[in-house]
Amino acid sequence: MQPFLAHPFDSDRLHEECGIFGAIGVLDASNFVALGLHALQHRGQEAGGIVTHDPEHGFNSAHRFGYVRDNFTKPDVMSTLPGPLAIGHVRYSTTGTKANTAIRDVQPFFGEFHMGGCAIAHNGNITNAAALRRELIERGSIFQSSSDSECIIHLMARSIQRNIPERMKDALRRVEGAFSVIAMTRTKLIGVRDALGVRPLVVGRVGEDGYVLASETCALDIIGAEFLREVEPGEMVVISKGKIESSRPFGPSTGRFCIFEHVYFSRPDSIIGGRSVYETRRQIGVELAREAPVEADLVCPVPDSGTPAAIGYAQESGIPYGMGIIRNQYMGRTFIEPSEQIRNMGVRLKLNVNRALIAGKRVVLVDDSVVRGTTSRKIKDMILDAGAAEVHFRIASPPTAWPCFYGVDTPDRDKLLAANMTPDEMREWIGVDSLSFVSLDGLYRAVGEAEGRNKSCPQYCDACFSGDYPVAPFDQLERGFRMKVGSETAVKQAAE
Amino acid sequence: MQPFLAHPFDSDRLHEECGIFGAIGVLDASNFVALGLHALQHRGQEAGGIVTHDPEHGFNSAHRFGYVRDNFTKPDVMSTLPGPLAIGHVRYSTTGTKANTAIRDVQPFFGEFHMGGCAIAHNGNITNAAALRRELIERGSIFQSSSDSECIIHLMARSIQRNIPERMKDALRRVEGAFSVIAMTRTKLIGVRDALGVRPLVVGRVGEDGYVLASETCALDIIGAEFLREVEPGEMVVISKGKIESSRPFGPSTGRFCIFEHVYFSRPDSIIGGRSVYETRRQIGVELAREAPVEADLVCPVPDSGTPAAIGYAQESGIPYGMGIIRNQYMGRTFIEPSEQIRNMGVRLKLNVNRALIAGKRVVLVDDSVVRGTTSRKIKDMILDAGAAEVHFRIASPPTAWPCFYGVDTPDRDKLLAANMTPDEMREWIGVDSLSFVSLDGLYRAVGEAEGRNKSCPQYCDACFSGDYPVAPFDQLERGFRMKVGSETAVKQAAE
Amino acid sequence: MQPFLAHPFDSDRLHEECGIFGAIGVLDASNFVALGLHALQHRGQEAGGIVTHDPEHGFNSAHRFGYVRDNFTKPDVMSTLPGPLAIGHVRYSTTGTKANTAIRDVQPFFGEFHMGGCAIAHNGNITNAAALRRELIERGSIFQSSSDSECIIHLMARSIQRNIPERMKDALRRVEGAFSVIAMTRTKLIGVRDALGVRPLVVGRVGEDGYVLASETCALDIIGAEFLREVEPGEMVVISKGKIESSRPFGPSTGRFCIFEHVYFSRPDSIIGGRSVYETRRQIGVELAREAPVEADLVCPVPDSGTPAAIGYAQESGIPYGMGIIRNQYMGRTFIEPSEQIRNMGVRLKLNVNRALIAGKRVVLVDDSVVRGTTSRKIKDMILDAGAAEVHFRIASPPTAWPCFYGVDTPDRDKLLAANMTPDEMREWIGVDSLSFVSLDGLYRAVGEAEGRNKSCPQYCDACFSGDYPVAPFDQLERGFRMKVGSETAVKQAAE
Amino acid sequence: MQPFLAHPFDSDRLHEECGIFGAIGVLDASNFVALGLHALQHRGQEAGGIVTHDPEHGFNSAHRFGYVRDNFTKPDVMSTLPGPLAIGHVRYSTTGTKANTAIRDVQPFFGEFHMGGCAIAHNGNITNAAALRRELIERGSIFQSSSDSECIIHLMARSIQRNIPERMKDALRRVEGAFSVIAMTRTKLIGVRDALGVRPLVVGRVGEDGYVLASETCALDIIGAEFLREVEPGEMVVISKGKIESSRPFGPSTGRFCIFEHVYFSRPDSIIGGRSVYETRRQIGVELAREAPVEADLVCPVPDSGTPAAIGYAQESGIPYGMGIIRNQYMGRTFIEPSEQIRNMGVRLKLNVNRALIAGKRVVLVDDSVVRGTTSRKIKDMILDAGAAEVHFRIASPPTAWPCFYGVDTPDRDKLLAANMTPDEMREWIGVDSLSFVSLDGLYRAVGEAEGRNKSCPQYCDACFSGDYPVAPFDQLERGFRMKVGSETAVKQAAE
Repeated sequence: MQPFLAHPFDSDRLHEECGIFGAIGVLDASNFVALGLHALQHRGQEAGGIVTHDPEHGFNSAHRFGYVRDNFTKPDVMSTLPGPLAIGHVRYSTTGTKANTAIRDVQPFFGEFHMGGCAIAHNGNITNAAALRRELIERGSIFQSSSDSECIIHLMARSIQRNIPERMKDALRRVEGAFSVIAMTRTKLIGVRDALGVRPLVVGRVGEDGYVLASETCALDIIGAEFLREVEPGEMVVISKGKIESSRPFGPSTGRFCIFEHVYFSRPDSIIGGRSVYETRRQIGVELAREAPVEADLVCPVPDSGTPAAIGYAQESGIPYGMGIIRNQYMGRTFIEPSEQIRNMGVRLKLNVNRALIAGKRVVLVDDSVVRGTTSRKIKDMILDAGAAEVHFRIASPPTAWPCFYGVDTPDRDKLLAANMTPDEMREWIGVDSLSFVSLDGLYRAVGEAEGRNKSCPQYCDACFSGDYPVAPFDQLERGFRMKVGSETAVKQAAE
Repeated sequence: MQPFLAHPFDSDRLHEECGIFGAIGVLDASNFVALGLHALQHRGQEAGGIVTHDPEHGFNSAHRFGYVRDNFTKPDVMSTLPGPLAIGHVRYSTTGTKANTAIRDVQPFFGEFHMGGCAIAHNGNITNAAALRRELIERGSIFQSSSDSECIIHLMARSIQRNIPERMKDALRRVEGAFSVIAMTRTKLIGVRDALGVRPLVVGRVGEDGYVLASETCALDIIGAEFLREVEPGEMVVISKGKIESSRPFGPSTGRFCIFEHVYFSRPDSIIGGRSVYETRRQIGVELAREAPVEADLVCPVPDSGTPAAIGYAQESGIPYGMGIIRNQYMGRTFIEPSEQIRNMGVRLKLNVNRALIAGKRVVLVDDSVVRGTTSRKIKDMILDAGAAEVHFRIASPPTAWPCFYGVDTPDRDKLLAANMTPDEMREWIGVDSLSFVSLDGLYRAVGEAEGRNKSCPQYCDACFSGDYPVAPFDQLERGFRMKVGSETAVKQAAE
Repeated sequence: MQPFLAHPFDSDRLHEECGIFGAIGVLDASNFVALGLHALQHRGQEAGGIVTHDPEHGFNSAHRFGYVRDNFTKPDVMSTLPGPLAIGHVRYSTTGTKANTAIRDVQPFFGEFHMGGCAIAHNGNITNAAALRRELIERGSIFQSSSDSECIIHLMARSIQRNIPERMKDALRRVEGAFSVIAMTRTKLIGVRDALGVRPLVVGRVGEDGYVLASETCALDIIGAEFLREVEPGEMVVISKGKIESSRPFGPSTGRFCIFEHVYFSRPDSIIGGRSVYETRRQIGVELAREAPVEADLVCPVPDSGTPAAIGYAQESGIPYGMGIIRNQYMGRTFIEPSEQIRNMGVRLKLNVNRALIAGKRVVLVDDSVVRGTTSRKIKDMILDAGAAEVHFRIASPPTAWPCFYGVDTPDRDKLLAANMTPDEMREWIGVDSLSFVSLDGLYRAVGEAEGRNKSCPQYCDACFSGDYPVAPFDQLERGFRMKVGSETAVKQAAE
Repeated sequence: MQPFLAHPFDSDRLHEECGIFGAIGVLDASNFVALGLHALQHRGQEAGGIVTHDPEHGFNSAHRFGYVRDNFTKPDVMSTLPGPLAIGHVRYSTTGTKANTAIRDVQPFFGEFHMGGCAIAHNGNITNAAALRRELIERGSIFQSSSDSECIIHLMARSIQRNIPERMKDALRRVEGAFSVIAMTRTKLIGVRDALGVRPLVVGRVGEDGYVLASETCALDIIGAEFLREVEPGEMVVISKGKIESSRPFGPSTGRFCIFEHVYFSRPDSIIGGRSVYETRRQIGVELAREAPVEADLVCPVPDSGTPAAIGYAQESGIPYGMGIIRNQYMGRTFIEPSEQIRNMGVRLKLNVNRALIAGKRVVLVDDSVVRGTTSRKIKDMILDAGAAEVHFRIASPPTAWPCFYGVDTPDRDKLLAANMTPDEMREWIGVDSLSFVSLDGLYRAVGEAEGRNKSCPQYCDACFSGDYPVAPFDQLERGFRMKVGSETAVKQAAE
């Protein structure tokens, strides 16, 4: 994921692995889905797909590598996607494997059952997918993709239930992990979230009888849809003929939404859990200014993802805010390096220091997170080369010390700076005058939990910071991953 | 031109028509040129070209439509561009004519003379090009492009001078208008600016004996070159074997640099006339806050071009700064509109209002300029739809009332809002609670002229605001364009 | 299929639907498969695919629309297909459905079973595919393509046999119709033909321990392989570690090879059933000259498919042979018709009459077959326009009156000229002076059956001429197709 | 040029360098030109261009690499080429320089003169182009291409004549060598041939008032145009408003048409000098059978270019004709060679021997010409590998011993087999049982000169066989080319 107000070295960030959108009861639903996916492009840029249905032509689909704007705007593509019902998916390319991603790994996935076809789009990660796949193959299922999400459609194909929503419940009860799923039959649009509601999903209304499902509210804004409510953790909604039916297939549950959506993944103009993401990020800056004040001349964001927190830090601290780093909007990674070595050419392709503003100043540099730390060093180098007197790094999230297994692409633990160094070692390694992360409690306060984190029953999934996994990562444990000793919630669940 | 910190509705802005770059005395000069043009991409996105020379292969060239990053990064293109000497050009597509732009209109242009070849890259506009072309065709020259710049190379071909720099002087003395030109022979890199120095051109040093010429200093930064100085108005520099020779082919002159480069065209991280462009823009915001204060709750830029002035306005006024409008970084213009009309869909593809921040607030909206005014209305609509209590528009330039004939793409006069309405009519037409432009003197103060504009001898070309054209636009006058009655400088010159 | 020595209006011919090739025991087997498929390109031009296996990288595949020479020659494609074992498939586009053909319909198909993966390439048609598909879906299989051939891999996935060759036998015993299949596991190359051996399949040896399977012997020639023998009707061969194991999974059977392969599908330089295809076609011309002699000045083939029979006719009749029709080797179907109507422009794009040769002559025009008859009329028009005195049409096959259901693309019965007219009506409708088809017995004599067709036990499948279907077309009968009353063999089988 | 009935190893043939076509007085002339160029595609496959004019849009042009059928069939290209007047050009890629061919080398060339624009398409070669180019550059002309033909348009631009046809006469009088030129102004279509008429050009009529000019009559046939006559050697025709005006700008002259057009370049269905090309080629076979009879079992052409002569040889000798070599219609040059060497893989991609026909036979192999001789060896190898008892090579042209400088791509003299070996050495080097070329007189008889070649005043240009150059090749002589001592015609002219 390259989020809205993204970080310029997005390859050194955590990434959401997808965005999903569905529409029913509108003319040419695929146009709505294309716009919705465009608004969700920050959640996945590698590829996208749309499936539609109309009574005359049945199901139709298109799956393409590349941006939504480059594919799902072409009349020759869109004209093959007629009908009042459509779902779509944008997908993130997990680092380094793009060469191996086939177009058949691109969702939505489709299955023809004897009661009719069904397409699904999945955001999240199934933590027992390897085990399920093994079992399904033994029983004669043929997998077409390397995607974990394909398990769901095979489990549905083998269900003995008579209708598709019931088959979907059957299937999802077998599945562990985090998922928000949008599905469609010939006449129904279905949305469902796992019991903890780790990944987001919202419902909106458009026009007379039209309904849409989307990962974030910003995708409602682009089509002028009205935001109705979130699909709740553990809820399934089935939308048909202008009506929404709700059920709770997984029993009662308390949500533990992914707190990193607030920090980096979601667009700042989205509303999550009733809160403005922009305001939350600005508030993290305020918390940071309180927790880690410093005497300085300039608060400067690492653009664009550090901007809201930098504004908050400046406002709380009274230090002037300024654009010390300018981002090249045309990007470009692959220039041939001139024969005489240019120091940090990779950085220069994306950023340039506003030397006249920085020179001689004590700079508070605000960034959203530190993952590997390599880009933090490069940015610090640029700032110092431009003549900054001091550099104080302020990070709008706690140290990222644990991988995510719930639909986010994270490096292995041994690549995470915070998993391998103390805060002071990190400061020294990066080479700055001071380095501070917002505290976990500070982050919880910024998202509106005045008391901070509830240790016995955390309000959010914060496993990447705390190592406290709310769902035991089955396949990972089989592969040898070792959880934190005494990690509260997950151990409980693993013991069940 | 889609400048750095560009406006989201760039089609409703004025546009620079090109960026130029040259390098000599370095290994694989084309790699430097590619990087330099990438840094200047905001000055022209339609197409680009590079010409190189090396003793073994002679002159080689590549001209391509599209971004530098998509063409001049490919090994199969770059490997055809060897040698220690190269120049390049990026070109802006003048509105609506793209379909007719042929690849042969893409610069640099090349001519084979009997003393050897010469390539030129031109930024600016020749105001007597039509007359020159007519004369050259009568004498047997065959034009290959529809570009005014091609006159220069034909005038050079017919010069009786024995070397190329002298032929270039011959040619440019016949040419009226604004130009910064970078040229190359087999062994020399040449830079020249017209007597008024309307368009920018700077010299830098890289490595041991390498020199570069560029439209802006930001293109020196990307390759780690040292900024030496500007080429002066009316100066020609000829660089060869590590030496720079300077001459003044057009006699003595006082520069009148384009003031709009400060307002919008140049990158904020460039240094022009010894001043930081970012700081100038922030200072315009300060001037605006002094000239047009208002009681409000939030200062919000139209991203990204209004941001520096908005920061200045907020700092001077004490009103909090906030990101009330979020720009979609994936853009996209061509989506198929869903059958049910979406109000202002074009706007929504690029921007979304940060509703939670705006709702109920009195908003100061800071934009860089008003050209046609159509996008100002749309943005105002979005802000009001999101529940703003009041909208106060503050514009970081004076009213744009006259077309530019010196290398900037401007609409005809009857399309310029300020040429057809009083400020109050504009306010009403746009539909905001108040509307203020920075004064011409305020703008001059922001660029460092403490006394404001010198009426008898203006320090800058500000014809787009004042109608005071420093060079009479010969071809345009022939076509019936009517200058402002009593316009100071141009009338003088036209009378000569 | 656009066969070797193809007809210029190939869209008015019957078409083979594919060609298959496999190689084992050679370095970079995919290169052999690419060459083999290139030699078999006449059997299918729409798309092609190759699957390979090597111990290090496992299974790899590439599927592409277009010619073999345009896809499987590129290093970036071929380098992804390593290993000593590979199979491939070229596919014909059935008329008018190309728009709907997805890349997932392109073979080979692949299935991952718990004992390892398997890829299959199928030439032929499964006559009970619709029924099998229905049953498999009910049991939870998810089909990915619209291809009948996919049934085979799902039947294999559900087999309880422990190894892949046995699973394949299980699957193919459930399948009705005509098939030649090449399959591969991680270590084995498998070839199998249905009990009647309707579609061809041959075995060859290359290098030390290398073996290949191919639709025709011409594909052995291109790689310099030695022709060993045909896979026999009802035989399965499993090739591994330099050894061929043979078995007969479908019990004893007498072959009924497709006689149309001799008439048009196969390449003239292939050897089928021990006979040269070229010589057979020349011999058909000889038979025609005996059965339907005529006084004339010139024997002229419809190029290129009518050429061998025309040579035979000329040699037997003593009438001079000449190229009265010249074929445009650059083809082209989509030219924009000039505003003034050009009569028969479609024909002119492909053919031109050699007017100087034709004018004033009595011409014997030799063509391979008549399907719809529309192109026969156009060619006759051209010949007469060029001034021929008489036109005598001689057809190197009996009247094509019945559709094929065994892997050949045929128009519906009501589109077949011979199904709807008597020979005399056809002569009049085409508008020629005489029209003769070779007799069914004459055709059998030309393929070496001195006694002609054995009515009680025909030596070949000749259903397209006789309506005598050796396998009842189950799905077609369900859809309402009515077989010929009293059709000998098929009725028997249908009654079983 | 890859001619009609082309040779499979066309890279070892001589090649025509272009085909030209023009149309006036028809609706959408570009559609006619596209069809005409398609019919002339055998004269040049690398690239093509079309220029049109209509009163509303002025001149428009499109130049593209690749086949006519792939470019000038697209509505988005053709819709940019409106108007009743158009000319076009197809161009051959001279061996090995394709990488350096720029799109600006693709004709027609266009020049804007002060009395209006003019486009020209040139077939032939200017033998003093280098000298003319030098002179024009010294006087200030800027060349845009590396093509010799561009001289013509620059000479025209500098002419002091008041109209374009007169300027063209001025220009062509300065030009030496062979040329057929089609040109257009805003209202006129112009055709002209050099005084010797080396290259072909014909006039036809289409519709009411439409006229066309074309390299060959086959291009008239495709659009249903009536063949009026050839443009005569030394004639200029100017067609406007339904009238043809003729003039003779170069004084009286006797034609010396290129005899190789009959042997290989022209399409067999074209009429040249009142003779059918097909019939001439068949007649060459007859002459060969008389001059070089042999006892054999089979006459076999090297397809497709040897076919008419082989038919003639068979008919005259009484030896049966048969297709011993089958050509792969899908071609392909770039397959990756399997790791185990395949002998003669290059040959196998294009040809396969019809082994069943060849084995044990004494074969007369008929080919059109021998250039380097390398492919003759390979084909002989294939025939012998297939078991032929004897191979007798019969060549339908005299030994090719001299390069052509009149618009044909020929290897240097030291690469021409016949320039470096005696006939007997050639036979041995190729490795055949006998080798015979038709005699020069035999060739003249086949083209209708009953008395053979007129030594004192040859009827044709046959320099490639005789070394007798009708125009001294000025640039070549400067570069050191040595003509045959005592060569009749050219020496005379060189002495002038």
